[in-house]
Amino acid sequence: MGNKARVVIVGGGFGGLWAAKALANKAVDVTLVDRKNHHVFQPLLYQVATAVLSPGEIATPIRRILHYAKNIEVILGEVTGFDTDRKTVRLDNGAELTFDYLIVAAGARHAYFGHDEWEVSAPGLKTIEDAVEIRRRVLLAFELAERQAYLRGKTEDLNFVVVGGGPTGVELAGAIADIARQAMAKDFKAIDTRKARVTLFEGSDRVLGTFAKELSESAKSQLEDLGVEVRLDSFVSDVKPGKVKVGDEWIDCDVVVWATGVAASPIGRQLGVETDKAGRIFVQPDLTIPGHANIFVIGDMASIKQESGEPVPGVSPAAMQMGTATAKNILADIDGRERNIFRYVDKGTMATIGRSKAIAQVFGLKLKGWIAWMFWLFLHIFFLIGFRNRFIVLAEWFWAYLTRERSARLITGDADELRNALTFISGPEAAKVLDEVSPKKANARVST
Amino acid sequence: MGNKARVVIVGGGFGGLWAAKALANKAVDVTLVDRKNHHVFQPLLYQVATAVLSPGEIATPIRRILHYAKNIEVILGEVTGFDTDRKTVRLDNGAELTFDYLIVAAGARHAYFGHDEWEVSAPGLKTIEDAVEIRRRVLLAFELAERQAYLRGKTEDLNFVVVGGGPTGVELAGAIADIARQAMAKDFKAIDTRKARVTLFEGSDRVLGTFAKELSESAKSQLEDLGVEVRLDSFVSDVKPGKVKVGDEWIDCDVVVWATGVAASPIGRQLGVETDKAGRIFVQPDLTIPGHANIFVIGDMASIKQESGEPVPGVSPAAMQMGTATAKNILADIDGRERNIFRYVDKGTMATIGRSKAIAQVFGLKLKGWIAWMFWLFLHIFFLIGFRNRFIVLAEWFWAYLTRERSARLITGDADELRNALTFISGPEAAKVLDEVSPKKANARVST
Repeated sequence: MGNKARVVIVGGGFGGLWAAKALANKAVDVTLVDRKNHHVFQPLLYQVATAVLSPGEIATPIRRILHYAKNIEVILGEVTGFDTDRKTVRLDNGAELTFDYLIVAAGARHAYFGHDEWEVSAPGLKTIEDAVEIRRRVLLAFELAERQAYLRGKTEDLNFVVVGGGPTGVELAGAIADIARQAMAKDFKAIDTRKARVTLFEGSDRVLGTFAKELSESAKSQLEDLGVEVRLDSFVSDVKPGKVKVGDEWIDCDVVVWATGVAASPIGRQLGVETDKAGRIFVQPDLTIPGHANIFVIGDMASIKQESGEPVPGVSPAAMQMGTATAKNILADIDGRERNIFRYVDKGTMATIGRSKAIAQVFGLKLKGWIAWMFWLFLHIFFLIGFRNRFIVLAEWFWAYLTRERSARLITGDADELRNALTFISGPEAAKVLDEVSPKKANARVST
Repeated sequence: MGNKARVVIVGGGFGGLWAAKALANKAVDVTLVDRKNHHVFQPLLYQVATAVLSPGEIATPIRRILHYAKNIEVILGEVTGFDTDRKTVRLDNGAELTFDYLIVAAGARHAYFGHDEWEVSAPGLKTIEDAVEIRRRVLLAFELAERQAYLRGKTEDLNFVVVGGGPTGVELAGAIADIARQAMAKDFKAIDTRKARVTLFEGSDRVLGTFAKELSESAKSQLEDLGVEVRLDSFVSDVKPGKVKVGDEWIDCDVVVWATGVAASPIGRQLGVETDKAGRIFVQPDLTIPGHANIFVIGDMASIKQESGEPVPGVSPAAMQMGTATAKNILADIDGRERNIFRYVDKGTMATIGRSKAIAQVFGLKLKGWIAWMFWLFLHIFFLIGFRNRFIVLAEWFWAYLTRERSARLITGDADELRNALTFISGPEAAKVLDEVSPKKANARVST
C-alpha cells in the first residue's frame, strides 16, 4: 500500500468492472464496493426472467472475476455518501474509505415517471432478484390458470403486458410469447397456453427507436410472428394490481413487466453536482465532475454527448469503454502523461426478439432475422464473463434450441414472496381466485 | 374421465412422482397436487447450499416430467385436510378433489426436538429455498469477515457448525470445508478462508450410523482430511443466534446448519390414524392405513418394518419403491388381481463426503474413498431427473472437478432476506459488526 494512489470504485457492473480490470496489477491500490457479491451479465437477464437460464449462469462473484488482481480489494457494502473535499466514501456501517481517485459507477434502474408505487405491480428487470420475481409471476400465472380451469372448469384468458418497446421490453415480450407457444404448451392440459395474450405497449411510434426505421419495422413484424401484439403510440398512464391504463382504457392483465424510463442511482445526487431529470450527472469530456478532476462518473449514471451531438447511449459497451478510458486517464495522471477525452466508439448494436429472430446494425450493415440472431448469439456468448459460464450457457442454449425446452422453470420463494407475487396476478376475475387461494394471501392483496 | 378410478397423489417428491410414473397412461385418472411446481432431486440439494450447482440444475417442473402422461393432471396447491369417509382431499382454496384411491406422499422435514424456534437460527435442508438460504448465510459470513478484516484490520475466526452426522450433515460439513479451503481461498485477500473452522456435532458415537462401523470410521477420517472437526457423543441442547450449546458449553458460530431429526409432514395427522413420535404413520404391509384399503401413505411419511425387523429407511430409493409398489397395487385392484405386500429391496447405500471422498455398501462390498465416490457420482448422474439436467450437471461437475471452482456463488435475496440472514451470522464479537452494518439490520436482530 503505502504511497500508491488509492482508487475507490463504486459498483461492479460493466463500467466499474472494466475500470477495475484496466487497473489490475498496476501501481494503484483499488477498492471496489458493491451491494451485491456478483456481477450480472445484464443483457441476458431477460433469459432468467423467462426461465431459460438460471441466475448462476449469468452472474459471477466480483471477487472471482478480479481474483488475479493483487492490488484490488472487493468488499460487499452499500455506499451511503461522499465527502468530495475530504476525499472519502461513506459505507452503510459508518466506515469510511479514503480515495485519491473515485469512480462512481452505480448504474440505473427503470423509472416510473414519478410513480414509484407502480413498481410493486409492474416490476422492472435490473437485478437477479427482479428476474426471479418476474419468473415467479409469469410461471404462477400459468399455474393458477391451469388450476382454475381444472378445478372449476372455467378458462380465463391469460394476459401478459410489457410496458416499453426498448431492447428489454422487446426481448421480454418475445420470450414470454415463445414460452407460452412452445415450452409451456406441451405441459399444460386444462388450458391452452398458446392462447395467452402478450401485449407490448410503446409510447412512441416504433419499437427499438434507436435503430434504423426499417429495422424497427422488421422487429415489430418479427414480434408479431411470435404472437406478440404490439401497440405503438400507447402510453401507459396508470398501473394498479391486475390492470394498466392506456389512454382512457383500463386493460386487465395477469402479469405486468416494466421496461421503460431511466433513473440513475440516487447516490449520484450525493456528489452535489448538476444532474439531468433522470438523475444522470453531466460529466466533463474526461468523465469527471465539474470542480473535481479526481472524481469520475461513468456508465448509466453519466450524461455526455458524442461528437455527433447525440447522447452516449446507456448500453453496456458504452459503460465498458468509459471504465477502460477512466482507468487509463488515472494511470496517465500517475505517469505524468496527459489525459484523453472520452470518445464513444459505436461498434454496432443489436437486439434479439426470439429464437432465430433479431435485428442488428453492424459494420454499416442492417441485418434482420436469422443472420442477425446468429450475430447476437455469437457476441453474447463471447462476452459472457468467464469461460465456465460461456461453456454452460452454450450447452443450455444448444439444448433449448434443439428441444424448445425451458429448463429453469422454477417457482421459488418463501411464503411472503409467493404471497406477494400472487397478490399482483389478478384481473377483475382472477382477483376472485386469489380470495380463494388462501385467506392469508387475500389479506395481503393490495386494495385497488 | 367418466368411470375410471380416480387417484389423487399428494406430493411430487420421489414417492409421489414414482407412483405417478407407474400410473402414467393406465386406465385411471390421476391428479397430483404439490405446493411447489417442481420436483427436487434432494440428494444433491447440499450442492446448491454450497454453491456448486444452481437450483435449476437439480429441480424440474413436475408437469414437465409427467407431460407425456395423458391421464395425469398436475396442480399447484396445498392440501389442508382429508375426509376419508367422503373420499375427498381439501385444498387451500376450499376446493375438494374426490378420489377412489389416495396416495399421501408429502415427505418430512428435519425436527428440532420440540424447539421449532431454533429453525430460524439453524435452518435445515429440504427445499430449494432452504438451500438458497444456507448458501446466502455461508457466503455472507465470508463476505462480512473479509469486510471486517479490510476495514478494521481485525480478523475474527469464522465458525461453521453442522448439527447431525447423517448423510446430509456429512455432505454439508465436507462441502463447506472444501469451499473454504479451495474455491474461496483464491478470492479473498484480507482473510485466510482456509482457517475457517467447520465442526460437525453428532449425538451418537459415530457418523453415518446406518453404515458398517468400519465405514463410519473411514467417513470420520475422510472428513478430518478435509479439515472438518468431528465431535461425536455431542448432543446440541440449545440454539441461539450465533451460538449453540453442546453439553454445558456454549459455542460461538457464524452459521449453523441443522441436519438431524425427522418430522413427517403434519398433514399426516389429518388422516386420523396412529403415528410414531416423528409423525410417521404406521402403515399396513401394503402401505395402506388401518381401516382404509384405498388410502396409501408412502415415503418419509410411512413407518414400516422390513422382514429383518429393521425399519425401512427414509431414503429416496425406498420412497421410489413404495411409489411403484402402490401404483401396481392400485392397478391390481382394478384388474381384479391380488395386491402384493411391500418389500424394500436394499440395493446398497452410499454417502459422499467430498471430492474423491465417499463410502458405499453395495453388492455386499464395503467401499471407501475414490472408488466409492466414483460409484456415487455415476449413480447420481444416472438418476438425475431428465437427460437435460444430467447433461448440464455433468458439465458443471466436470468443470468443478478440473478447476476446484464453485460456480454458483451468488448471494441473492431481497432486502428482508439479506437482513434476516445477517441477523443470524453473529457470534458475540460478530454481533458488534452487525450493529454497524446498518441500523435497520441491527433492529431486526433477534435478542438473545
